[in-house]
Amino acid sequence: MALNILNKLEKDLLKFPGIGQRLARKLAIYLLTRDKEENIKFIEDLKEIDIKVFRCEECFALVESGKLCDFCRNPNREKRILVVHNVEDYLLLSENKIFDGYYHILNGLISPIRGITPDMLSIEKLIDRIEKRKIIEIIFALPGTNDGLITTLYIKNQLKERFTELIFSKIAEGIPYGSGLSEISMQTILTSLKNRENIQ
Amino acid sequence: MALNILNKLEKDLLKFPGIGQRLARKLAIYLLTRDKEENIKFIEDLKEIDIKVFRCEECFALVESGKLCDFCRNPNREKRILVVHNVEDYLLLSENKIFDGYYHILNGLISPIRGITPDMLSIEKLIDRIEKRKIIEIIFALPGTNDGLITTLYIKNQLKERFTELIFSKIAEGIPYGSGLSEISMQTILTSLKNRENIQ
Repeated sequence: MALNILNKLEKDLLKFPGIGQRLARKLAIYLLTRDKEENIKFIEDLKEIDIKVFRCEECFALVESGKLCDFCRNPNREKRILVVHNVEDYLLLSENKIFDGYYHILNGLISPIRGITPDMLSIEKLIDRIEKRKIIEIIFALPGTNDGLITTLYIKNQLKERFTELIFSKIAEGIPYGSGLSEISMQTILTSLKNRENIQ
Repeated sequence: MALNILNKLEKDLLKFPGIGQRLARKLAIYLLTRDKEENIKFIEDLKEIDIKVFRCEECFALVESGKLCDFCRNPNREKRILVVHNVEDYLLLSENKIFDGYYHILNGLISPIRGITPDMLSIEKLIDRIEKRKIIEIIFALPGTNDGLITTLYIKNQLKERFTELIFSKIAEGIPYGSGLSEISMQTILTSLKNRENIQ
């Protein structure tokens, strides 16, 4: 006996990243059969997203109160901006407190194949921030994919024309700690060989 | 920068079957950053569960309208009842139309270890139905686990005392010990239904 609501929930869940047909069905049945109180709680939390979560007007991080995130409200951080492509990478880096400057979320990567053009990213805002904050360095921490490399190069070239003193860098490509060479692409091995470091 | 709502959503999603810490976080970020329209749609569907989905008063299948499911509304099906332990297994069997009798969802399995006792299952309702429908056979299609076997034997013994003419069988062939029905191919389920064994 087919249930409309089962199909609807399955479709909803199939949109989620990392959830395939089988798990979507399992989860839909779980939602249909668990204590209704649990769904009410979940719905409340989902509603909060709409009401409480906004994007920082400067860096596009998620904020729960105010127009700016804690970093952008602080004028005393280092005059460097670390550029990431999405909120997931932003959270990973910012929660680990490995950087004392500002962040900037691009909200995507330039991708000729997927039709994502530079005007769809937050590049204009980045330019504003460099001027306003007197930024001295832009550090790209984008994925090591074609789209990531294209985006890094495009933005660097755009910024170089306007800000002749600005320093550009990107996080180093190399062999991750704990990995054997056989697990790494030859492209990365070549780069890490070229950029080899002296051992003192 | 920690977000309260991110933690709350992660906790909600960790309750889902088959979702671990890493995926829960990924999904929470997905919910936080996707188009708000998508969440509104999802919330509507979740609300429908509360409003529209009920349990059939006879067999405990999910129904979207009325008090009885399509099977239980039909007096002309075979006078046999196929007993499953949950909605997932019920949907798997009923959607594949491999059986022409009635279904019965136990809503669990007797489990001394997990403290699930016979009175927590829908056994009384099953007894009512056998009388009312003049059922001639009970077919157990429970998982091939200890709990499944204990439950089959317990219910069979209870019913045997009351209904001396009742035939008992269980699907047997091809269900590996330790597996749930949803992990098995439909071919195997069909064979095990056809070759069901009488319980002495």
